[in-house]
Amino acid sequence: MTEIDIIERLRQKLPVFPRSGIVLGVGDDCAVFRPKSSPEDLLVTTDLLVEGIHFLPSTHLPEDVGHKAVARGLSDIAAMGGDPRFCLLSVALAPGMEGAWMGRFYRGALRLAGIHKLTIAGGDLAHAARFTCDVVVCGAVPRGEALTRSGARPGDSIYISGALGGSALGLESRSSAARNRHLRPEPRVALGRFLRRQVHASAAMDLSDGISLDLHRLSVASGVSAVIDHPLPSFPGASVEQVLHGGEDYELLFTVAPGTRVPRHYDGIPLTRIGSMIERRRMRVAFFGRELEPLGYDHFRLAT
Amino acid sequence: MTEIDIIERLRQKLPVFPRSGIVLGVGDDCAVFRPKSSPEDLLVTTDLLVEGIHFLPSTHLPEDVGHKAVARGLSDIAAMGGDPRFCLLSVALAPGMEGAWMGRFYRGALRLAGIHKLTIAGGDLAHAARFTCDVVVCGAVPRGEALTRSGARPGDSIYISGALGGSALGLESRSSAARNRHLRPEPRVALGRFLRRQVHASAAMDLSDGISLDLHRLSVASGVSAVIDHPLPSFPGASVEQVLHGGEDYELLFTVAPGTRVPRHYDGIPLTRIGSMIERRRMRVAFFGRELEPLGYDHFRLAT
Repeated sequence: MTEIDIIERLRQKLPVFPRSGIVLGVGDDCAVFRPKSSPEDLLVTTDLLVEGIHFLPSTHLPEDVGHKAVARGLSDIAAMGGDPRFCLLSVALAPGMEGAWMGRFYRGALRLAGIHKLTIAGGDLAHAARFTCDVVVCGAVPRGEALTRSGARPGDSIYISGALGGSALGLESRSSAARNRHLRPEPRVALGRFLRRQVHASAAMDLSDGISLDLHRLSVASGVSAVIDHPLPSFPGASVEQVLHGGEDYELLFTVAPGTRVPRHYDGIPLTRIGSMIERRRMRVAFFGRELEPLGYDHFRLAT
Repeated sequence: MTEIDIIERLRQKLPVFPRSGIVLGVGDDCAVFRPKSSPEDLLVTTDLLVEGIHFLPSTHLPEDVGHKAVARGLSDIAAMGGDPRFCLLSVALAPGMEGAWMGRFYRGALRLAGIHKLTIAGGDLAHAARFTCDVVVCGAVPRGEALTRSGARPGDSIYISGALGGSALGLESRSSAARNRHLRPEPRVALGRFLRRQVHASAAMDLSDGISLDLHRLSVASGVSAVIDHPLPSFPGASVEQVLHGGEDYELLFTVAPGTRVPRHYDGIPLTRIGSMIERRRMRVAFFGRELEPLGYDHFRLAT
């Protein structure tokens, strides 16, 4: 059973009560809540960070863990074109972490939050055998304007920001650029806003689990197939495996309608066309004529 | 170092950015977000549930764990007088939990969510050595009307709903009423709404960590002292210790201005006057003339 299967099975059982204000629920980067009579929708995302799964104490400094916790949530807000507003940090500390470790964790989290003017509005504190935290980030978009995974149409061009495979390379190598990429990912918040406001992207999501899996998800959500027929921009030194299936690059994947002008760079970040969307076929994602299996990081395929 | 100290130290470092929309941050049952131009404020709360800390697999069925996860968040919404709207469930499963255990966990969570018309709008899935989940519950109140911990004034009467000590008793005994109280707490959502709309309570919070600690917190937040001079309503069979310091009763503690009429019952739940607020003194909480130490459940005092 894969994570997609589990989420799909769950989703079918989840009623959306009419008064909830939820206009987009399980299955995208954020849920979308529509406050009564407001010109803005609220984006809400929640992400776990578990010691030994999402980070290793031997690799990550406490500041890196705090940075990553906040970065994961901000990246989901970026994917939907949102303005970050506030976050909640729930932290279960392992024995011995109450003093200096915790202070350094919060320093890393607060630094990144401060850069994005993200107010830390609450949270919870507990103990656990291993450090676990959950970060909730909320952002705002003008009503009805959130970028989603489901808006891609046949004929749309597919783009990605930046280069792929850097984070996976950084896990395994001593290259300091790649290690930095892995330890301190930069959520593409300003780019996401630009894609919503200026580019009017038809669909977007963040690349958290590798393009092979994430483009598969976007194609399923949009009911189309994807063709990659241009070279993927690779992080220097990354292997083909790392580029196709490596997770945690936190770049943005987006599509635009035919004729849309997309600049080559945004604020120094390359924006590269890698292919196009087509009518749904048997092959969900084609990579230079062959099927690209969704082998990116899936917590639940690994488990079963 | 206690949880109060840690949270106070953190709070001083946390900037609230003006555009965040946060009108009440760290330190109450929920954060309060004010959507642009809306007649409603949004309440947001997040709670961890960690295997071995908040529940034991030997005591709790998977359905109980799902129930409790949602109940904790709903109780925070109730404490501020909110209408539940939606929640997000982040779940890190221990090895072997992916099949039947997970299905039964979600059944318990969905059942309680359904009773309160709470839409499950998203979440995250991961693995961990031990089951950990984080539940975010969001609710709404008319703008500016959230009940808070900080509104109690000298002369106000102090009330609690229901009876105390049942959950602590249920942990240790075979009494089925007390065990049920521990395993399936009932968040006082309708009562919280009644306290906001009809009673116009001056302050409120939920009793999650024992009245000795929670009344202390409410008194600190309001800048007053509390005097308990009426008998505390006790769950049948609960010891004085369990009544004063036992956690997880999830009843409501609230205060009302002098002259406010409070009914003796609401929907079958007794509402009992236990004392009154006075000007701040050295003793934060007096219990029949002696100081009541805040010995309720504190994750961090236990740790240090």
